[in-house]
Amino acid sequence: MLKGVAASLRYIFYTKPISGNLTGLIKPLFTPTIEGMKEEALPITKESEDDWYQKLVIEAGLADYSPVRGCMVIKPYGYALWENIQKVIDRRIKETGHQNAYFPLLIPEEFLKREKQHVEGFSPELAVVTVAGGKKLEVPLVVRPTSETIIYDSFSKWIHSWRDLPMLINQWANVVRWEMRTRLFLRTTEFLWQEGHTAHATEKEAEEEALKMLGVYKEFAEQYLALPVIDGQKSEAEKFAGAQTTYTIEAMMKDKKALQAGTSHNLGQNFAKAFHITFMDKEQQEQHVWQTSWGVSTRLIGAIVLAHSDEKGLVLPPRIAPIQAVIVPIYKTEEEKNSVIAKAHETAKKLSAIAVKVDGREEVTPGFKYNDWELKGVPLRIEIGPKDLEKKQVVCVRRDSKEKLFVADADIATVVPELLEKIQLSLYERAKIFMKENTGTVGTYDELKDIVKREGGFVRAHWCGDGACEKKIKEETKATLRCIPFAEKEETGECVVCGKKTKGKRVIFAKAY
Amino acid sequence: MLKGVAASLRYIFYTKPISGNLTGLIKPLFTPTIEGMKEEALPITKESEDDWYQKLVIEAGLADYSPVRGCMVIKPYGYALWENIQKVIDRRIKETGHQNAYFPLLIPEEFLKREKQHVEGFSPELAVVTVAGGKKLEVPLVVRPTSETIIYDSFSKWIHSWRDLPMLINQWANVVRWEMRTRLFLRTTEFLWQEGHTAHATEKEAEEEALKMLGVYKEFAEQYLALPVIDGQKSEAEKFAGAQTTYTIEAMMKDKKALQAGTSHNLGQNFAKAFHITFMDKEQQEQHVWQTSWGVSTRLIGAIVLAHSDEKGLVLPPRIAPIQAVIVPIYKTEEEKNSVIAKAHETAKKLSAIAVKVDGREEVTPGFKYNDWELKGVPLRIEIGPKDLEKKQVVCVRRDSKEKLFVADADIATVVPELLEKIQLSLYERAKIFMKENTGTVGTYDELKDIVKREGGFVRAHWCGDGACEKKIKEETKATLRCIPFAEKEETGECVVCGKKTKGKRVIFAKAY
Repeated sequence: MLKGVAASLRYIFYTKPISGNLTGLIKPLFTPTIEGMKEEALPITKESEDDWYQKLVIEAGLADYSPVRGCMVIKPYGYALWENIQKVIDRRIKETGHQNAYFPLLIPEEFLKREKQHVEGFSPELAVVTVAGGKKLEVPLVVRPTSETIIYDSFSKWIHSWRDLPMLINQWANVVRWEMRTRLFLRTTEFLWQEGHTAHATEKEAEEEALKMLGVYKEFAEQYLALPVIDGQKSEAEKFAGAQTTYTIEAMMKDKKALQAGTSHNLGQNFAKAFHITFMDKEQQEQHVWQTSWGVSTRLIGAIVLAHSDEKGLVLPPRIAPIQAVIVPIYKTEEEKNSVIAKAHETAKKLSAIAVKVDGREEVTPGFKYNDWELKGVPLRIEIGPKDLEKKQVVCVRRDSKEKLFVADADIATVVPELLEKIQLSLYERAKIFMKENTGTVGTYDELKDIVKREGGFVRAHWCGDGACEKKIKEETKATLRCIPFAEKEETGECVVCGKKTKGKRVIFAKAY
Repeated sequence: MLKGVAASLRYIFYTKPISGNLTGLIKPLFTPTIEGMKEEALPITKESEDDWYQKLVIEAGLADYSPVRGCMVIKPYGYALWENIQKVIDRRIKETGHQNAYFPLLIPEEFLKREKQHVEGFSPELAVVTVAGGKKLEVPLVVRPTSETIIYDSFSKWIHSWRDLPMLINQWANVVRWEMRTRLFLRTTEFLWQEGHTAHATEKEAEEEALKMLGVYKEFAEQYLALPVIDGQKSEAEKFAGAQTTYTIEAMMKDKKALQAGTSHNLGQNFAKAFHITFMDKEQQEQHVWQTSWGVSTRLIGAIVLAHSDEKGLVLPPRIAPIQAVIVPIYKTEEEKNSVIAKAHETAKKLSAIAVKVDGREEVTPGFKYNDWELKGVPLRIEIGPKDLEKKQVVCVRRDSKEKLFVADADIATVVPELLEKIQLSLYERAKIFMKENTGTVGTYDELKDIVKREGGFVRAHWCGDGACEKKIKEETKATLRCIPFAEKEETGECVVCGKKTKGKRVIFAKAY
């Protein structure tokens, strides 16, 4: 698995021949003397967690603030991460039968208003173009916050017969939502995403589609981002504006908060009725279609940062890392330099199946480079010094465990990819244990409040299904109902808030991003 | 070359196992009974050329009109073409040392105003967000028409020292320009493109960069789009708003009009001064950087349509075609059907190195399928009937020349890719001869007017360099100065308008899209 992915990512990193100067593709865009890079740790503390997060995102070169409120600049290292995410998800979207297309950025305001819940959910967040070409527009145009309405207008023209179904479309695009409080990647005024939009002949097919795509997201989060997730259904209060049912994958960050990493909506016939999307079935009866929509966004980059980073910086899962291994040559004399650099490049050649980089910078020390690449979360560091030349070996240092391994030159091509795969699995296992250890089960509201306040993490509790009880928890503890997990069993219990006897699944409450 | 590209494109088309029903990825989004698909030709005539063009774009499934004035919906078949274009250009951009990044869609209005020429050029075309989050914005935000200003604001923060240079950035994005007259792909209010933005320590380096990227575009147009182009410099009147020099590649369409297919700008220090982008050079002197920007857009899809189509529809160059070969099974009896369909799939397997599709639709005739795939411009049709089973062969029909070839089963895997390559080269050669045959050389203004009026095409003429003479030609003939070609020799001559003796290159005049 790793080999295939790595091979497909290779071309990103070899845009210039590897050379002994600063010309590597992922050139730091900040100057190497920036504060905090040498020794200063970036502690995860409750007090400064937000500050820590944004500082890390910026110092690691993932993103930068922009002069436009709430917008960010995705820097090359962050964008390379996004491209790797895109590549895998795009392939899976196509493998599951969907086609990419592109619909207009600007949507007539009236479109949004056609579906009642939809407009209620999105209207507070809209950015509106009122002037264009030097004139006031008669019909204001909304910058898309999501594309259901503009895409389903096309669906209503394209779909006539059962032969046109299923219609399986995906779009990679930017969207704008005027958020009050923004945080790099996690919540930005503009973000990048993919949005799938489908239409089906039956309710059953739409339901299967919504669940299938949630499965694609779960598999991706777990296998590529090393992010264990709980898949389940959102409550009425938390579902997408305009959906019949919203499904979600919820991940746990290192501060034990939940992060919604992807959603998939069964839209029922809500939009089909608002946009008159009908088809003639095999019996020549006119029917409304059944629809789904689903998406993941650049928020996933925030999830990677919050789930795996440590005091030294990012820790990127190897399958998605823009640079999978960095080679640092170590030398003192000119003679040593020549032979060490030569070996560094030989080693890089042996590793042509992965995304490898030789850090040949001369103006900084090896120690500086260690810190730099640790900050950037490169999964494996390969050190090569004069002694390693003698011993016909290299020294590998894992980013995740700091473990040091001596690898014989003859074994590099096989051992390094294996090591990367080990790191990938180990990150996933670690996160899985962490989530398990920080998921509590409660029977009373006091227990719930206590855990949310003192320890954090996920809380499993019975809930009667009443929005009032859900609201009470949110107001009193700031924890929200993350999902009704697929994996939970139906059982009888008492609602953690009102105590009412209920038959159903335990649900997950947690504070969330 | 073809093999590599084809192989890398394959996964797009095999999203579902090839099967005998309608589930192929490039499923027509219009119903097969749509008018004009069966027998009606789509003639290229002077009278209806615009109508013909838009009709073809829509009927072939490349794009659709949208409810938003001047915007288009890029349909899956058109978007697959764009993805193939992106893949090649993105690879070349990375191979030449650039990194992708992403900058905000919305730009503070004030940014545009900092560079005088820039704002003059773009302000009539701006779409402006004045309301967001339910409130009137204090600072109106412009939807990017191009990103020089917002990107160079970041450059001014990122560049400090000569070590930070060159800064080589590219962005794939959507942009909005409020055009008065729009035409699908050729000129739309919103379009997709890539925009490269670089900063350098010296003027020489910036000039080399601008020319290098124009070279990348020329190579791409010629080798992938089979589009011969003339590369050269724009006149002062035609250059990019804010550039010091604009370079262009100009192609000739089948109606002999010119189409600007890509541009690259040497920006000098215009934006560096407006955005205070400076660096400390090796001598510790503060200097302004030298910059370039360059881009190609979804307009290239319009160029492919206008350059290669014929009376039956699109003719797509094989190296960029979403479907390179389509297999049409022909049978009458149920028995024939089974064996013919089996052979169709065997043949597809043999062609796994290219993007192949079996058209197993049962509700339409083979003749209908021929027309359908001809309309869509698939380079090669492979027909398989009961006789071909007996003779252990298939029948290949070239889209470009209509030539029919019988290929033995044993040779399919080698002959078909070769055939595609032949089609690619033949399209290029044909277009090159066409451009040559329709390029005239004139000595007098009467000759120029006569050619522009009667024959069209490119006109080579001497020009004194005065904007007034250029303007006169434009006003009186509608022909514009397309470029001062690199390949022309410096020589003495007389300006075709004013007759003034001049030493310089002949320039190209033509009507243009």
